[in-house]
Amino acid sequence: MNIIKDSTPYADGFRMPAEFEPHTGCIMIFPERADSWQYGGYAARKAFVQVACAIAQSEKVTVLASDKQYENARAVLPSHIRVAEMSSNDAWARDYAPTFVVNTEGKIRGIDWGFNAWGGLTDGLYFPWDKDNRMARKVCDLYDVDVYDKRDFILEGGSIHTDGEGTVMVTESCLLSKGRNPSLSREEIEGTLKDFLGAEKVLWLPRGIYLDETNEHVDNICAFTAPGEVVLSWTEDKEDAQYSLSLACLEYLSGQKDARGRKLKVHKLPLPKPVCIKEEECEGLDLCDDEPTRKPGDRLAASYVNFYIANKAVVMPGFGEDTDEAARKILQGLFPDREVVQIYARDILIGGGNIHCITQQIPGR
Amino acid sequence: MNIIKDSTPYADGFRMPAEFEPHTGCIMIFPERADSWQYGGYAARKAFVQVACAIAQSEKVTVLASDKQYENARAVLPSHIRVAEMSSNDAWARDYAPTFVVNTEGKIRGIDWGFNAWGGLTDGLYFPWDKDNRMARKVCDLYDVDVYDKRDFILEGGSIHTDGEGTVMVTESCLLSKGRNPSLSREEIEGTLKDFLGAEKVLWLPRGIYLDETNEHVDNICAFTAPGEVVLSWTEDKEDAQYSLSLACLEYLSGQKDARGRKLKVHKLPLPKPVCIKEEECEGLDLCDDEPTRKPGDRLAASYVNFYIANKAVVMPGFGEDTDEAARKILQGLFPDREVVQIYARDILIGGGNIHCITQQIPGR
Repeated sequence: MNIIKDSTPYADGFRMPAEFEPHTGCIMIFPERADSWQYGGYAARKAFVQVACAIAQSEKVTVLASDKQYENARAVLPSHIRVAEMSSNDAWARDYAPTFVVNTEGKIRGIDWGFNAWGGLTDGLYFPWDKDNRMARKVCDLYDVDVYDKRDFILEGGSIHTDGEGTVMVTESCLLSKGRNPSLSREEIEGTLKDFLGAEKVLWLPRGIYLDETNEHVDNICAFTAPGEVVLSWTEDKEDAQYSLSLACLEYLSGQKDARGRKLKVHKLPLPKPVCIKEEECEGLDLCDDEPTRKPGDRLAASYVNFYIANKAVVMPGFGEDTDEAARKILQGLFPDREVVQIYARDILIGGGNIHCITQQIPGR
Repeated sequence: MNIIKDSTPYADGFRMPAEFEPHTGCIMIFPERADSWQYGGYAARKAFVQVACAIAQSEKVTVLASDKQYENARAVLPSHIRVAEMSSNDAWARDYAPTFVVNTEGKIRGIDWGFNAWGGLTDGLYFPWDKDNRMARKVCDLYDVDVYDKRDFILEGGSIHTDGEGTVMVTESCLLSKGRNPSLSREEIEGTLKDFLGAEKVLWLPRGIYLDETNEHVDNICAFTAPGEVVLSWTEDKEDAQYSLSLACLEYLSGQKDARGRKLKVHKLPLPKPVCIKEEECEGLDLCDDEPTRKPGDRLAASYVNFYIANKAVVMPGFGEDTDEAARKILQGLFPDREVVQIYARDILIGGGNIHCITQQIPGR
């Protein structure tokens, strides 16, 4: 693995493909952290295993696990899923695993962004985050692909989406947050996204999902389903705090064109009713920095948009709500060539994210 | 990775190839343990890196490193050598990495032997050894090859050598030691070697190298250089404690034939003068279990036989002694198609083994 410090993917002819382009594999991390995953993480493990199995139907899945958890991971995952040892502070592969870029010959490289637990000492979610921050490079080494060293720029994989045709979508609330790259202007941040993702146009959604602890990652509110088409988390309830956030995104998107000059087609994906954490769930969580990570009744950032697009499936969350089936049908209509697999994901959501957050695709045929 | 519990390599048509057959790669472990490697292991690291680079000239080398040492390993190894995270208790890849077997189609599988730090609670060298014992399976998972679960049988890779044609060579002092498999008879142990290595004949050398802490592993005293030919550590000094040990091996080998019925050709490889540890070297070593691991003046188990046969090189130790060059010439004569690379290995020897002990080949073309 070469560590590339003095060039950019764009300069070298590499771009980040869309998630709906072909993958050779997917990376996940085995959940372990006791202040994220209730009651020792057993329920979360089950959901992670279901996600891994659904994805492994059409691409090779590697689950990274600590030495301590290796045996447990190996025991609960089927033999066609690889388990590799790797240390982390938590289990959000989307945010710590490398962003992969490809060139026209199909060669891949990784990007090693800086990671600071979603806001560092300003508003990060835990301390320390050193093991997470080492992962992207280690994953590239594991797959023997070269890596761009961009640790001087704080970015999580969940805060970017691309159509693979020159358009990148982010949220202002996240990328302009004080805990990321406060010394950089919006234009400078946009320049980095263009240089590293091969983007020509950056779409800046104003906000994300209400109370999303990541400063509202784009991957929880809006995703590309095809070139020129996005799906947006939506509520018709004007009393809901989410209403104005989704509306602001809709209004923004309505006035924008993508890098190819297309007007964007926006599909609304209704949200579930507010999903709140229960007292007995909170009781199963350790403290973090002497404080509870959740309080009974806290609203969780539930959204059906937090899905993963595998080669032959879309793996989406369900919350045990009446709205689950309607959401599944909408997504199935948007992905006619893939089977939409819905997995009960309350136990992932409690950790603070969902299916897209715990996965990272490796592009390629 | 499938874990195979109810069959054996022999029954499935797999055999352990000779080290001089083709390899696809080699596994090593980055040294870190402060009671094995003096002064923080910096000198040992240098020697390990030289070994890795010499091997990487003709096969893919993967160095396994703890999370803590990953960055250091990556920094001192060239980019064509892969570094993968894996936890261990020490750095003896020969003894913890899987023994690989192949079938006639070239498919490979691993064997996960039990490991107890060279003797467990009887005369093992450190406690605990749990991370080492988990490695073989994890390495198979990393390479996505199936693994035989033989953890109920204690064996280290350094305690076996094979000619790839049905002959396996071991030492009685090690395989019959009380700290390995005391409940098994010699015949039962031989049966396991035949079932798992595809052997038809086991050669039992009586002894190994004087004061070798592994209960005298075969790989420090005798090795196959070709079918029907071995190289044996030798001294002409009848006053040396090693003399009777080497003589016993020579006498044993002289009376034996291999699995194909050939009389063995024994090449003597003279030992260096006794290599003893110095006071300043001991001062750089941490205690182990409240005791020093070495005392000034202790004789180390130095032997030129502890070499690694790579695809296009033989990587052998040197000790800064007059005998180094003579030993190199003998080996070069025995391996006319490979370059014999001699690496100053005192800093590996201080840890308790040598170049063969810190490497494990992955067979295949």
